[in-house]
Amino acid sequence: MKKTNRRSLCPISTALEMLGDKWALIILRDMIFRGMETYSEFLKAHEKIATNTLATRLINLEQNGLIEKKDYPGNKVKVLYKLTPMGLDLIPVLFELVLWGDKYFETDKDAESLAENIRSDRDGLIKYLRDKHQ
Amino acid sequence: MKKTNRRSLCPISTALEMLGDKWALIILRDMIFRGMETYSEFLKAHEKIATNTLATRLINLEQNGLIEKKDYPGNKVKVLYKLTPMGLDLIPVLFELVLWGDKYFETDKDAESLAENIRSDRDGLIKYLRDKHQ
Repeated sequence: MKKTNRRSLCPISTALEMLGDKWALIILRDMIFRGMETYSEFLKAHEKIATNTLATRLINLEQNGLIEKKDYPGNKVKVLYKLTPMGLDLIPVLFELVLWGDKYFETDKDAESLAENIRSDRDGLIKYLRDKHQ
Repeated sequence: MKKTNRRSLCPISTALEMLGDKWALIILRDMIFRGMETYSEFLKAHEKIATNTLATRLINLEQNGLIEKKDYPGNKVKVLYKLTPMGLDLIPVLFELVLWGDKYFETDKDAESLAENIRSDRDGLIKYLRDKHQ
């Protein structure tokens, strides 16, 4: 069911509102491509996100339906963050950012090889990433 | 030539840094899909952007090479903002945001028909938009 009650009927404006800011997309990147799923993993990610920024972005992403909390097996304090179908549907958006970034800026070998994989087998890679997150 | 001297070698992180924030992408949307090219047109756009926000985003987009200023024919005070090739290469990013936004949120008829066009003839629409901005 499509959600309503927003300021704008433009899908781009709405998408950007739902995503929040750069940090939300960086968290989604870490989940989708790097398999991160705990608060401490996000915190260790190399851009050095501030703890309060990380905490509020995780809450926003959860409230907007892009990620969900799961129990961490054998640990009642820790939680796992998993992508929802709605969050996984952002893979193509991240793909296009990878291709654009790779075209215009210096990147590392991992990013170059990711861009190459997107160019050569986009659909296969989307399926691979989706399966990994089921 | 690829630009260097950035904090991260991740193309997504770099792309997001270059784009700035939601407003920068809204300005690019207005240019790409709605043909806007003057300060006053952006100001009138329906999300009601604040004048200082608009002015700084235009400066950032210009400094980052996504848009460029051109003389307004017959008017020495007014300037036109045009997309650079680097800015036009963001069309696929905006397409994916349209498709994602259209899938999950209520949109208007224009947005639905844009999403439909992207799904049925993505490459043709990219070419059409590129030609329009030459």
